[in-house]
Amino acid sequence: MTDTAPKIRRTDPERRDRIVDACLELIAEAGVAGTSHRKVAAKADVPLGSMTYHFDGMDELLREAFTRFANSVADGFDARLEAAVTPAQAEAAVVALITEDVFSAPRDLVLTHELYTLAAREPRFRDITNAWMARSRKALEQHFDPLTASLLDALIEGLTIHRALDTEPPVDADVLEAVHRITGPARV
Amino acid sequence: MTDTAPKIRRTDPERRDRIVDACLELIAEAGVAGTSHRKVAAKADVPLGSMTYHFDGMDELLREAFTRFANSVADGFDARLEAAVTPAQAEAAVVALITEDVFSAPRDLVLTHELYTLAAREPRFRDITNAWMARSRKALEQHFDPLTASLLDALIEGLTIHRALDTEPPVDADVLEAVHRITGPARV
Repeated sequence: MTDTAPKIRRTDPERRDRIVDACLELIAEAGVAGTSHRKVAAKADVPLGSMTYHFDGMDELLREAFTRFANSVADGFDARLEAAVTPAQAEAAVVALITEDVFSAPRDLVLTHELYTLAAREPRFRDITNAWMARSRKALEQHFDPLTASLLDALIEGLTIHRALDTEPPVDADVLEAVHRITGPARV
Repeated sequence: MTDTAPKIRRTDPERRDRIVDACLELIAEAGVAGTSHRKVAAKADVPLGSMTYHFDGMDELLREAFTRFANSVADGFDARLEAAVTPAQAEAAVVALITEDVFSAPRDLVLTHELYTLAAREPRFRDITNAWMARSRKALEQHFDPLTASLLDALIEGLTIHRALDTEPPVDADVLEAVHRITGPARV
Protein backbone atom coordinates (compact mmCIF):
# COMPACT_ATOMS: atom_id res chain seq x y z
CA MET A 1 0.00 0.00 0.00
CA THR A 2 1.35 3.41 -0.87
CA ASP A 3 -1.31 5.74 0.50
CA THR A 4 -0.29 8.24 3.12
CA ALA A 5 -3.09 7.72 5.68
CA PRO A 6 -1.80 6.91 9.15
CA LYS A 7 -1.29 3.19 9.47
CA ILE A 8 -3.70 2.78 12.36
CA ARG A 9 -6.63 4.15 10.33
CA ARG A 10 -5.89 1.96 7.33
CA THR A 11 -5.64 -1.31 9.25
CA ASP A 12 -8.39 -0.65 11.80
CA PRO A 13 -11.50 -1.97 10.07
CA GLU A 14 -10.00 -5.32 9.17
CA ARG A 15 -8.38 -5.66 12.58
CA ARG A 16 -11.71 -5.04 14.33
CA ASP A 17 -13.25 -7.63 12.04
CA ARG A 18 -10.54 -10.13 12.82
CA ILE A 19 -11.08 -9.67 16.55
CA VAL A 20 -14.82 -10.41 16.20
CA ASP A 21 -14.10 -13.54 14.14
CA ALA A 22 -11.45 -14.70 16.63
CA CYS A 23 -13.95 -14.21 19.46
CA LEU A 24 -16.52 -16.42 17.67
CA GLU A 25 -13.88 -19.09 17.06
CA LEU A 26 -12.92 -19.07 20.72
CA ILE A 27 -16.55 -19.33 21.83
CA ALA A 28 -17.00 -22.30 19.50
CA GLU A 29 -13.91 -23.97 20.94
CA ALA A 30 -14.01 -23.06 24.63
CA GLY A 31 -17.45 -21.57 25.29
CA VAL A 32 -18.31 -18.07 26.51
CA ALA A 33 -16.90 -19.08 29.91
CA GLY A 34 -13.53 -19.91 28.34
CA THR A 35 -13.31 -16.69 26.34
CA SER A 36 -11.31 -13.73 27.63
CA HIS A 37 -9.84 -10.50 26.26
CA ARG A 38 -6.38 -11.99 26.48
CA LYS A 39 -7.26 -15.20 24.63
CA VAL A 40 -9.15 -13.36 21.89
CA ALA A 41 -6.19 -11.01 21.38
CA ALA A 42 -3.83 -13.98 21.08
CA LYS A 43 -6.11 -15.76 18.60
CA ALA A 44 -6.63 -12.62 16.49
CA ASP A 45 -2.88 -11.93 16.71
CA VAL A 46 -3.37 -8.35 17.88
CA PRO A 47 -1.83 -6.59 20.87
CA LEU A 48 -3.98 -6.49 24.00
CA GLY A 49 -4.14 -2.70 23.70
CA SER A 50 -5.90 -3.09 20.37
CA MET A 51 -8.76 -4.89 22.13
CA THR A 52 -9.46 -2.00 24.47
CA TYR A 53 -9.11 0.45 21.58
CA HIS A 54 -11.83 -1.31 19.58
CA PHE A 55 -14.14 -2.65 22.29
CA ASP A 56 -15.41 -1.16 25.53
CA GLY A 57 -15.30 -4.54 27.20
CA MET A 58 -16.17 -8.20 26.92
CA ASP A 59 -19.90 -7.41 26.75
CA GLU A 60 -19.52 -5.35 23.59
CA LEU A 61 -17.29 -7.96 21.98
CA LEU A 62 -19.65 -10.86 22.82
CA ARG A 63 -22.58 -8.81 21.58
CA GLU A 64 -20.90 -8.09 18.27
CA ALA A 65 -19.66 -11.66 17.82
CA PHE A 66 -23.08 -13.22 18.43
CA THR A 67 -24.82 -10.60 16.27
CA ARG A 68 -22.47 -11.47 13.42
CA PHE A 69 -23.19 -15.17 13.91
CA ALA A 70 -26.99 -14.64 14.08
CA ASN A 71 -26.88 -12.52 10.93
CA SER A 72 -24.94 -15.18 9.05
CA VAL A 73 -27.59 -17.78 9.88
CA ALA A 74 -30.38 -15.30 9.06
CA ASP A 75 -28.73 -14.64 5.67
CA GLY A 76 -29.21 -18.33 4.93
CA PHE A 77 -32.89 -18.06 5.88
CA ASP A 78 -33.29 -15.11 3.54
CA ALA A 79 -31.59 -16.89 0.64
CA ARG A 80 -33.75 -20.03 1.00
CA LEU A 81 -37.01 -18.11 1.28
CA GLU A 82 -36.26 -15.52 -1.40
CA ALA A 83 -35.62 -18.31 -3.90
CA ALA A 84 -39.14 -19.70 -3.34
CA VAL A 85 -42.01 -18.43 -5.48
CA THR A 86 -45.03 -20.71 -5.03
CA PRO A 87 -46.55 -21.73 -1.67
CA ALA A 88 -45.28 -25.29 -2.24
CA GLN A 89 -41.77 -23.94 -2.83
CA ALA A 90 -42.01 -21.85 0.34
CA GLU A 91 -42.94 -24.97 2.33
CA ALA A 92 -40.11 -26.90 0.72
CA ALA A 93 -37.74 -24.08 1.67
CA VAL A 94 -38.82 -24.35 5.32
CA VAL A 95 -38.31 -28.13 5.20
CA ALA A 96 -34.84 -27.62 3.69
CA LEU A 97 -33.95 -25.12 6.43
CA ILE A 98 -34.81 -27.78 9.02
CA THR A 99 -33.36 -30.86 7.32
CA GLU A 100 -30.33 -29.35 5.54
CA ASP A 101 -29.35 -25.87 6.71
CA VAL A 102 -29.78 -25.15 10.43
CA PHE A 103 -27.12 -26.91 12.56
CA SER A 104 -25.64 -28.64 9.49
CA ALA A 105 -22.31 -27.47 10.88
CA PRO A 106 -21.56 -28.65 14.46
CA ARG A 107 -20.07 -25.19 15.05
CA ASP A 108 -23.47 -23.58 14.44
CA LEU A 109 -25.13 -25.95 16.90
CA VAL A 110 -22.58 -25.05 19.57
CA LEU A 111 -22.62 -21.29 18.92
CA THR A 112 -26.43 -21.16 18.95
CA HIS A 113 -26.59 -22.88 22.32
CA GLU A 114 -23.78 -20.75 23.73
CA LEU A 115 -25.83 -17.69 22.77
CA TYR A 116 -29.04 -19.13 24.22
CA THR A 117 -27.30 -20.03 27.48
CA LEU A 118 -25.86 -16.52 27.71
CA ALA A 119 -29.26 -14.95 27.00
CA ALA A 120 -30.92 -17.33 29.48
CA ARG A 121 -28.48 -16.18 32.17
CA GLU A 122 -28.26 -12.51 31.27
CA PRO A 123 -31.47 -10.90 30.00
CA ARG A 124 -29.49 -7.92 28.63
CA PHE A 125 -28.33 -10.16 25.77
CA ARG A 126 -31.91 -10.99 24.71
CA ASP A 127 -31.99 -8.09 22.27
CA ILE A 128 -29.71 -10.29 20.13
CA THR A 129 -32.08 -13.29 20.21
CA ASN A 130 -35.01 -10.89 19.70
CA ALA A 131 -33.40 -9.33 16.61
CA TRP A 132 -32.56 -12.79 15.24
CA MET A 133 -36.16 -13.98 15.62
CA ALA A 134 -37.41 -10.75 14.02
CA ARG A 135 -35.21 -11.37 10.97
CA SER A 136 -36.27 -15.02 10.64
CA ARG A 137 -39.95 -14.10 10.91
CA LYS A 138 -39.60 -11.28 8.37
CA ALA A 139 -38.04 -13.74 5.93
CA LEU A 140 -40.92 -16.17 6.51
CA GLU A 141 -43.49 -13.38 6.14
CA GLN A 142 -42.61 -13.12 2.46
CA HIS A 143 -44.76 -16.24 2.12
CA PHE A 144 -46.85 -16.63 5.29
CA ASP A 145 -49.07 -14.43 7.49
CA PRO A 146 -47.33 -13.08 10.65
CA LEU A 147 -48.84 -15.65 13.07
CA THR A 148 -47.98 -18.58 10.79
CA ALA A 149 -44.48 -17.14 10.31
CA SER A 150 -43.86 -16.93 14.06
CA LEU A 151 -45.23 -20.46 14.62
CA LEU A 152 -43.04 -21.80 11.80
CA ASP A 153 -40.06 -20.04 13.39
CA ALA A 154 -40.78 -21.81 16.71
CA LEU A 155 -41.32 -25.13 14.91
CA ILE A 156 -37.98 -24.75 13.09
CA GLU A 157 -36.33 -24.04 16.45
CA GLY A 158 -37.84 -27.05 18.20
CA LEU A 159 -37.39 -29.53 15.37
CA THR A 160 -33.78 -28.59 14.65
CA ILE A 161 -32.82 -28.83 18.33
CA HIS A 162 -34.59 -32.17 18.75
CA ARG A 163 -33.05 -33.57 15.56
CA ALA A 164 -29.58 -32.43 16.65
CA LEU A 165 -29.73 -33.62 20.26
CA ASP A 166 -31.49 -36.94 19.68
CA THR A 167 -29.52 -40.15 19.29
CA GLU A 168 -32.04 -41.66 16.88
CA PRO A 169 -31.89 -40.88 13.16
CA PRO A 170 -34.32 -38.08 12.19
CA VAL A 171 -37.25 -38.77 9.84
CA ASP A 172 -37.42 -36.11 7.13
CA ALA A 173 -41.01 -37.00 6.14
CA ASP A 174 -42.16 -35.96 9.62
CA VAL A 175 -40.78 -32.47 9.00
CA LEU A 176 -42.90 -31.97 5.87
CA GLU A 177 -45.95 -33.18 7.80
CA ALA A 178 -45.21 -30.71 10.62
CA VAL A 179 -44.81 -27.80 8.21
CA HIS A 180 -48.05 -28.80 6.47
CA ARG A 181 -49.93 -28.81 9.73
CA ILE A 182 -48.69 -25.35 10.71
CA THR A 183 -49.19 -23.77 7.28
CA GLY A 184 -52.34 -25.67 6.29
CA PRO A 185 -54.95 -23.34 7.78
CA ALA A 186 -52.96 -20.31 6.62
CA ARG A 187 -53.27 -21.28 3.00
CA VAL A 188 -57.07 -21.59 2.82
CA MET B 1 -29.70 -43.08 65.37
CA THR B 2 -28.90 -46.14 67.39
CA ASP B 3 -28.46 -48.82 64.74
CA THR B 4 -25.14 -50.56 64.52
CA ALA B 5 -24.54 -50.38 60.75
CA PRO B 6 -21.18 -48.84 59.89
CA LYS B 7 -21.49 -45.06 59.66
CA ILE B 8 -20.38 -44.84 56.06
CA ARG B 9 -23.18 -47.12 54.88
CA ARG B 10 -25.83 -45.25 56.83
CA THR B 11 -24.90 -41.78 55.58
CA ASP B 12 -23.93 -42.69 52.04
CA PRO B 13 -27.23 -42.44 50.17
CA GLU B 14 -28.10 -38.98 51.43
CA ARG B 15 -24.55 -37.75 50.94
CA ARG B 16 -24.52 -38.93 47.34
CA ASP B 17 -27.85 -37.18 46.85
CA ARG B 18 -26.53 -33.98 48.36
CA ILE B 19 -23.55 -34.02 46.01
CA VAL B 20 -25.81 -34.33 42.96
CA ASP B 21 -28.00 -31.46 44.18
CA ALA B 22 -24.95 -29.31 44.91
CA CYS B 23 -23.66 -30.01 41.41
CA LEU B 24 -26.95 -28.82 39.88
CA GLU B 25 -26.88 -25.68 42.03
CA LEU B 26 -23.35 -24.92 40.91
CA ILE B 27 -24.22 -25.45 37.23
CA ALA B 28 -27.17 -23.06 37.65
CA GLU B 29 -24.89 -20.46 39.25
CA ALA B 30 -21.62 -20.82 37.36
CA GLY B 31 -22.33 -23.05 34.34
CA VAL B 32 -20.82 -26.42 33.49
CA ALA B 33 -17.55 -24.62 32.75
CA GLY B 34 -17.44 -23.16 36.26
CA THR B 35 -18.21 -26.48 37.96
CA SER B 36 -15.39 -28.61 39.40
CA HIS B 37 -15.01 -31.51 41.81
CA ARG B 38 -13.56 -29.18 44.39
CA LYS B 39 -16.36 -26.60 44.15
CA VAL B 40 -19.10 -29.24 44.29
CA ALA B 41 -17.48 -30.79 47.38
CA ALA B 42 -17.36 -27.39 49.08
CA LYS B 43 -21.00 -26.63 48.20
CA ALA B 44 -22.20 -30.07 49.35
CA ASP B 45 -20.06 -29.73 52.47
CA VAL B 46 -18.40 -33.10 51.96
CA PRO B 47 -14.69 -33.96 51.94
CA LEU B 48 -13.09 -34.15 48.51
CA GLY B 49 -12.43 -37.86 49.08
CA SER B 50 -16.17 -38.42 49.29
CA MET B 51 -16.52 -37.17 45.70
CA THR B 52 -14.15 -39.78 44.32
CA TYR B 53 -15.79 -42.45 46.51
CA HIS B 54 -19.22 -41.75 45.03
CA PHE B 55 -18.39 -40.69 41.47
CA ASP B 56 -15.90 -41.98 38.93
CA GLY B 57 -15.32 -38.48 37.63
CA MET B 58 -16.91 -35.24 36.51
CA ASP B 59 -18.64 -36.98 33.60
CA GLU B 60 -20.58 -39.31 35.89
CA LEU B 61 -21.52 -36.46 38.20
CA LEU B 62 -22.71 -34.20 35.36
CA ARG B 63 -24.62 -37.08 33.86
CA GLU B 64 -26.41 -37.82 37.11
CA ALA B 65 -27.12 -34.16 37.86
CA PHE B 66 -28.63 -33.45 34.44
CA THR B 67 -30.60 -36.72 34.51
CA ARG B 68 -32.10 -35.71 37.85
CA PHE B 69 -32.98 -32.29 36.44
CA ALA B 70 -34.52 -33.74 33.26
CA ASN B 71 -36.57 -36.20 35.31
CA SER B 72 -37.91 -33.45 37.54
CA VAL B 73 -39.15 -31.51 34.49
CA ALA B 74 -40.52 -34.71 32.95
CA ASP B 75 -42.40 -35.43 36.20
CA GLY B 76 -44.22 -32.13 35.66
CA PHE B 77 -45.11 -33.19 32.10
CA ASP B 78 -46.51 -36.45 33.43
CA ALA B 79 -48.58 -34.73 36.11
CA ARG B 80 -50.12 -32.25 33.67
CA LEU B 81 -50.95 -34.87 31.06
CA GLU B 82 -52.17 -37.53 33.48
CA ALA B 83 -54.69 -35.07 34.91
CA ALA B 84 -56.25 -34.56 31.45
CA VAL B 85 -59.09 -36.84 30.37
CA THR B 86 -60.77 -35.36 27.28
CA PRO B 87 -58.94 -34.29 24.09
CA ALA B 88 -59.73 -30.65 24.93
CA GLN B 89 -58.19 -31.11 28.39
CA ALA B 90 -55.11 -32.70 26.81
CA GLU B 91 -54.70 -29.68 24.52
CA ALA B 92 -55.18 -27.35 27.48
CA ALA B 93 -52.52 -29.29 29.38
CA VAL B 94 -50.05 -28.78 26.51
CA VAL B 95 -50.89 -25.06 26.45
CA ALA B 96 -50.35 -24.88 30.22
CA LEU B 97 -46.99 -26.64 29.89
CA ILE B 98 -45.90 -23.94 27.43
CA THR B 99 -47.43 -20.88 29.10
CA GLU B 100 -47.07 -21.80 32.77
CA ASP B 101 -44.72 -24.69 33.49
CA VAL B 102 -41.63 -24.93 31.30
CA PHE B 103 -39.03 -22.26 32.15
CA SER B 104 -41.33 -20.68 34.74
CA ALA B 105 -38.25 -20.73 36.98
CA PRO B 106 -35.21 -18.89 35.56
CA ARG B 107 -33.10 -21.74 37.00
CA ASP B 108 -34.83 -24.24 34.70
CA LEU B 109 -34.18 -22.03 31.67
CA VAL B 110 -30.48 -21.86 32.54
CA LEU B 111 -30.08 -25.57 33.39
CA THR B 112 -31.85 -26.66 30.20
CA HIS B 113 -29.54 -24.56 28.05
CA GLU B 114 -26.46 -25.67 29.97
CA LEU B 115 -27.46 -29.27 29.21
CA TYR B 116 -28.16 -28.49 25.54
CA THR B 117 -24.82 -26.72 25.16
CA LEU B 118 -23.03 -29.67 26.76
CA ALA B 119 -24.87 -32.14 24.50
CA ALA B 120 -24.19 -29.93 21.47
CA ARG B 121 -20.46 -30.01 22.26
CA GLU B 122 -20.17 -33.60 23.47
CA PRO B 123 -22.38 -36.15 21.68
CA ARG B 124 -21.78 -38.67 24.49
CA PHE B 125 -24.21 -36.66 26.63
CA ARG B 126 -27.03 -36.95 24.07
CA ASP B 127 -28.37 -40.09 25.71
CA ILE B 128 -29.64 -37.71 28.41
CA THR B 129 -31.49 -35.45 25.95
CA ASN B 130 -32.70 -38.57 24.11
CA ALA B 131 -34.10 -40.10 27.32
CA TRP B 132 -35.74 -36.77 28.24
CA MET B 133 -37.47 -36.52 24.83
CA ALA B 134 -38.57 -40.15 25.11
CA ARG B 135 -40.23 -39.44 28.47
CA SER B 136 -41.97 -36.27 27.21
CA ARG B 137 -43.26 -38.05 24.13
CA LYS B 138 -44.48 -41.01 26.15
CA ALA B 139 -46.43 -38.63 28.39
CA LEU B 140 -47.95 -36.96 25.32
CA GLU B 141 -48.78 -40.35 23.76
CA GLN B 142 -51.37 -40.90 26.48
CA HIS B 143 -53.50 -38.51 24.39
CA PHE B 144 -51.96 -38.22 20.92
CA ASP B 145 -50.61 -40.58 18.23
CA PRO B 146 -46.76 -40.95 18.21
CA LEU B 147 -46.13 -38.53 15.30
CA THR B 148 -48.38 -35.84 16.79
CA ALA B 149 -46.73 -36.38 20.19
CA SER B 150 -43.23 -35.88 18.77
CA LEU B 151 -44.33 -32.78 16.82
CA LEU B 152 -45.98 -31.35 19.94
CA ASP B 153 -42.77 -32.04 21.86
CA ALA B 154 -40.79 -30.05 19.25
CA LEU B 155 -43.41 -27.28 19.27
CA ILE B 156 -43.24 -27.05 23.08
CA GLU B 157 -39.43 -26.81 22.79
CA GLY B 158 -39.47 -24.07 20.17
CA LEU B 159 -42.28 -21.99 21.68
CA THR B 160 -40.91 -22.07 25.22
CA ILE B 161 -37.42 -21.06 24.05
CA HIS B 162 -38.77 -18.26 21.87
CA ARG B 163 -41.06 -17.00 24.63
CA ALA B 164 -38.20 -17.03 27.12
CA LEU B 165 -35.54 -15.41 24.94
CA ASP B 166 -37.73 -12.78 23.27
CA THR B 167 -37.93 -9.27 24.66
CA GLU B 168 -41.55 -8.81 23.61
CA PRO B 169 -44.42 -10.06 25.80
CA PRO B 170 -45.65 -13.49 24.68
CA VAL B 171 -49.21 -13.94 23.34
CA ASP B 172 -50.88 -16.92 25.01
CA ALA B 173 -53.67 -17.14 22.40
CA ASP B 174 -51.03 -17.93 19.76
CA VAL B 175 -49.99 -20.99 21.74
CA LEU B 176 -53.50 -22.47 21.68
CA GLU B 177 -53.67 -21.82 17.94
CA ALA B 178 -50.30 -23.56 17.44
CA VAL B 179 -51.39 -26.60 19.46
CA HIS B 180 -54.68 -26.73 17.53
CA ARG B 181 -52.84 -26.73 14.22
CA ILE B 182 -50.53 -29.58 15.25
CA THR B 183 -53.23 -31.72 16.88
CA GLY B 184 -56.06 -30.86 14.48
CA PRO B 185 -55.48 -33.57 11.83
CA ALA B 186 -54.74 -36.12 14.54
CA ARG B 187 -58.17 -35.80 16.04
CA VAL B 188 -60.23 -36.47 12.90
